Amino acid sequence: MQAASCAKSDAEIRAVARRLRHDIRDGNWRDLTTGQAPGSVQGNLVVLPAADAADFEQYCARNPRPCPLIAMSAPGDPHMPALGADIDLRTDLPCYRVFENGVEVAETHDISGYWRDDLVAFVLGCSYSFEAALTRAGLSLRHIEQGVKVPLYMTDIATEPSGAFRGPMVVSMRPFAPADAIRAIEITARFPDLHGAPVHFGNPALIGIADIDAPWSGAPPVIGVDEVPLFWACGVTPQVAVTRARPALCITHKPGHMLITDRLDAEFFGTTESRETGVS
Amino acid sequence: MQAASCAKSDAEIRAVARRLRHDIRDGNWRDLTTGQAPGSVQGNLVVLPAADAADFEQYCARNPRPCPLIAMSAPGDPHMPALGADIDLRTDLPCYRVFENGVEVAETHDISGYWRDDLVAFVLGCSYSFEAALTRAGLSLRHIEQGVKVPLYMTDIATEPSGAFRGPMVVSMRPFAPADAIRAIEITARFPDLHGAPVHFGNPALIGIADIDAPWSGAPPVIGVDEVPLFWACGVTPQVAVTRARPALCITHKPGHMLITDRLDAEFFGTTESRETGVS
Repeated sequence: MQAASCAKSDAEIRAVARRLRHDIRDGNWRDLTTGQAPGSVQGNLVVLPAADAADFEQYCARNPRPCPLIAMSAPGDPHMPALGADIDLRTDLPCYRVFENGVEVAETHDISGYWRDDLVAFVLGCSYSFEAALTRAGLSLRHIEQGVKVPLYMTDIATEPSGAFRGPMVVSMRPFAPADAIRAIEITARFPDLHGAPVHFGNPALIGIADIDAPWSGAPPVIGVDEVPLFWACGVTPQVAVTRARPALCITHKPGHMLITDRLDAEFFGTTESRETGVS
Repeated sequence: MQAASCAKSDAEIRAVARRLRHDIRDGNWRDLTTGQAPGSVQGNLVVLPAADAADFEQYCARNPRPCPLIAMSAPGDPHMPALGADIDLRTDLPCYRVFENGVEVAETHDISGYWRDDLVAFVLGCSYSFEAALTRAGLSLRHIEQGVKVPLYMTDIATEPSGAFRGPMVVSMRPFAPADAIRAIEITARFPDLHGAPVHFGNPALIGIADIDAPWSGAPPVIGVDEVPLFWACGVTPQVAVTRARPALCITHKPGHMLITDRLDAEFFGTTESRETGVS
C-alpha cells in the first residue's frame, strides 16, 4: 500500500474525519468538504422513499460508472454503519437539498424534520477519492491547481433507465498531456467503485458536448495546446435522474458538501483493486 | 481466467505450439509466425557474446517498456527451459539475421554454424500476446482487419543507455475510437511484461513522428476521422540499439519470425496481472 509512505497513520486519518463529521453535526462546519479530511472516502447522498428505492437501486446497478453505490440504508434507518459506526445521515452533512415532486423546496443543514420511517439512503462513491489516487501518482489536476470546481458537462450518452429514473450522463473533465492521460486511465481503471476509467477523451462533440469552454457547471477549463480532455462519468448523473423522476420526496447533499466517512481511500482502493483483478 | 471460455484446452494450445516449433526445427515452416499457434506466447530473440550480455541485460532492465525481457540463457546454452523443455534456439525460429560489427552478414534458417560457447540468448515479450488480449476483449485491430503488418515509427524518445546500447524508442501504432482506446489502455496496462500501456496517443509530432502516413516500417495506416492513434513501445527498439552498438556478433530473429514458446498467453497474463496488483 502506498499509504504507508504517507506521513499520517490510518488512525490519524480517521480521527481527522471523525472530528470534521462531529463539527458538521454540531453546526460548526457548513462549508464545502472539498480537500478536507484527506485520505478519507467522501460520499454523495441520495435519500428516497422506500417506494422508489428498488428502482433507484437498480438504476445504480445498471449505471455503475456514474452511480457507484457504496452503501444503502435499511428503510427508516438514518445510520450507515458500513461507512462509520456513529454516522447519522440527518445531521452529518454540511448542507442538504430537499426536493418535493422534483422541485427544490429547501436547502438546510439538518434534515431531522424531513426524516420518515420509509426513507432509504444511498451513498455513492465520489471522484475526490480517485483524485487523491491521481495526485498520489504525481499527476497534477488543473482545477485543483487553479482552485476552481471541476468542470461538468451534460452529454448525449443516455443512461440505462430503471423505472422513472433515466437521463443523460453527466461527465467531469480533467485535461492532461498524453503520457499523463495514459497514467490517469491506468490508475482510475483500477477503481470501478469510484467512477472507474474515463468514458471518453478528445473530441467533445463525439459525446454531445457542443462547446468545451461552456461547462454545464464549474469553471471554464484551461486546456494546454498539447493536452487532451479526459471525461469521467460523474456522480451528479443520478441527481439529474432523480430530479427528472420527480419522486414525492428526495433529499440529496448540496454539491461539494459531502458525507465524510470512516473508510480510507487506501482501504477502499485495495478492495476494488482486488475485485478488479478477480473480474478481469 | 477468460481462457476457460475458449474452445481449446491449455493442452491443445501447447500441442499446436509444439507441432509448429517442430515443423520449424525440421525446416517445414520458414514463414512468418504471425497469427500462428494462437494462445501461445511468441518471443523476440537477441543473441550476443557474453562480453556484451551484462550491458544488454541492464539495457532491458532500464527500458522495460520496449525491452520486456522474459528469459535469458546461460552462456553457451542454446536451450531455454523456462519457455519450453525442448527449445533449441539454434534451430527453432523460422528465420534469423546474423550481424557482425553491426552489419548484416546472413539471413538463415539455422544458426548452429554460428553458435559459440560464449553466446547468451535473450527472449523479449512480443506484442502478439497483448494483441490477443485486446482481441479477446472484443477490440478490432486495424492492421489485422486489413491483413498488413502493424505500422512502426522511429520516435525522438531516447531510451536509457547501458554501455554501448542506446538509441531512440521504436513504437507500433494501432488506431481506435476513444472508448475503445480507453479499453485498450486499461487492458495493456495490466501486462507490463508485454510492453504495457501505450507511451503516447494523439498528436504524433509530440514524440517526433513527422508524418503518420509514412511509417518507418509496415503499411501506411488507415485512421478513421473519429479515431485516435495509440503508440506502444515496440520490441524492435532493442534491435535498433544492438545494430547501433555494433557488437562483434549478434543474432536476432527476422521480424515476424518469432520463437514459439510453451508459455500460454493466459498464464503469462495471470502472472503479470498479479505482479501489477502487488506493485501498485
